[in-house]
Amino acid sequence: MKRIQISRTVTRFENGKVKKIEDCIVTEQPVTIKLNNEEFATMVCTPEYVEDMVIGFLASEGVIRNYDDIEDLWVQEREGFVHVKTRFTNEFYQKFHSKRYITSCCGKSRQGFVFFNDARVAKYMEDINIRLTYEDCFRLMNAMQNRAVVFQKTGGVHNAALCDQNDIVLSRLDIGRHNALDKIYGHCLRNNISLKDKVIVFSGRISSEILSKVAKIGCEIVLSKSAPTELALELAEELGITTVGFIRNNSLNVYTHPERIIEAIED
Amino acid sequence: MKRIQISRTVTRFENGKVKKIEDCIVTEQPVTIKLNNEEFATMVCTPEYVEDMVIGFLASEGVIRNYDDIEDLWVQEREGFVHVKTRFTNEFYQKFHSKRYITSCCGKSRQGFVFFNDARVAKYMEDINIRLTYEDCFRLMNAMQNRAVVFQKTGGVHNAALCDQNDIVLSRLDIGRHNALDKIYGHCLRNNISLKDKVIVFSGRISSEILSKVAKIGCEIVLSKSAPTELALELAEELGITTVGFIRNNSLNVYTHPERIIEAIED
Repeated sequence: MKRIQISRTVTRFENGKVKKIEDCIVTEQPVTIKLNNEEFATMVCTPEYVEDMVIGFLASEGVIRNYDDIEDLWVQEREGFVHVKTRFTNEFYQKFHSKRYITSCCGKSRQGFVFFNDARVAKYMEDINIRLTYEDCFRLMNAMQNRAVVFQKTGGVHNAALCDQNDIVLSRLDIGRHNALDKIYGHCLRNNISLKDKVIVFSGRISSEILSKVAKIGCEIVLSKSAPTELALELAEELGITTVGFIRNNSLNVYTHPERIIEAIED
Repeated sequence: MKRIQISRTVTRFENGKVKKIEDCIVTEQPVTIKLNNEEFATMVCTPEYVEDMVIGFLASEGVIRNYDDIEDLWVQEREGFVHVKTRFTNEFYQKFHSKRYITSCCGKSRQGFVFFNDARVAKYMEDINIRLTYEDCFRLMNAMQNRAVVFQKTGGVHNAALCDQNDIVLSRLDIGRHNALDKIYGHCLRNNISLKDKVIVFSGRISSEILSKVAKIGCEIVLSKSAPTELALELAEELGITTVGFIRNNSLNVYTHPERIIEAIED
């Protein structure tokens, strides 16, 4: 794969003066997944942790249920292909891939899903396996942002972190919002890291797509620096996920399932 | 279609105090295009100017070449379907839809494209039909940001504007980066607005996908508040498109084809 950033000479205009400067630019790599010899999907990503990303993506699409379902996986670096052979073919998946999920007009169940496979793979969070204080929310968001500092100068990537109540377990960046989450999910599947008592901390907006991804990964809480959408909140409400947004300076908003966000942890 | 934003009660924590506030949340609407009775694509968008978006999308995908190629178009609002009947079926398109565009390893031609249809539809900008001064760049970026001010409180959308050298011709917002551009493109196709001597001003990053879209629309200059990616710059270099990024305060970077950005317009 390529490097994740390169240097490039650009013309800079600043306070009335034109000069040439060396600028840091993020790269993009198209990656095509060939699943059991067929072209399955093409994603454009930041070229690191690509195998994890592919594993996370296939799991979140419901193609595999766990890492053992993959019989073989190899990367053709120069061409940007990742070949995956699974132990079985999931006919249910083939049938509904990218199929719009339409509910009856009156039914309220799982209305928020856009795609059929999302509704099939997403997990319901019925229990409370983790609680955070408001202070934890600020601390974890700061930790993620500090971790991302090296890359901030290029201004071109999203950051995501998997955290427990105390600190970051794993952080990943990508030019594609959901790729960063797929990289985290893939790493956890490969290394048998439980996601049940973890939190996703995310730099970008919480769209329905991101919320679906969090639900498929199986985390109960998502923290974001930015805004959620209405559809994401409908989904979060129904799936039992706690969403916290606009975590900036000394304020934040809790949008859904506030029972997991508390003032202080009791001993 | 739904409203583009709603009000919602959220739990706000600010400077140590918890309170309930009314917050503005942007909506999302899944829209499925049924092309000649077949499910063609599903996009999630801000529910306004949806017909324009569909027309712009179909044109940028190479399904139609102009507005007249559409025989009929009707919207099923509640279900979020847009039905399109075209005057002819484009077999070339059907064959290459979402097909990865792979060049030979040594050839340099059109390396930057990810999808075959992008390479087919994108236009080369060989002439110079518009020039901007540095001051124009700042002025147009400010104009776009001022226009978007009503929606900025929700924090959840991208803004795009089509401008001539003097001012905004048309501006659109969307939760999806490329949807905002498709809405502009569709409007121009419907109303026979020339794109040749216009500029795209964009709030988000210039990824290869956005650059491809600009090339397909047929604009020579793209201005962004944010960063470009390397792949986008390779494409811009080859297609003859001027990219200007990080337009903030009194500075900006010109990345490619600087011949269209000048110190002052000569009389």
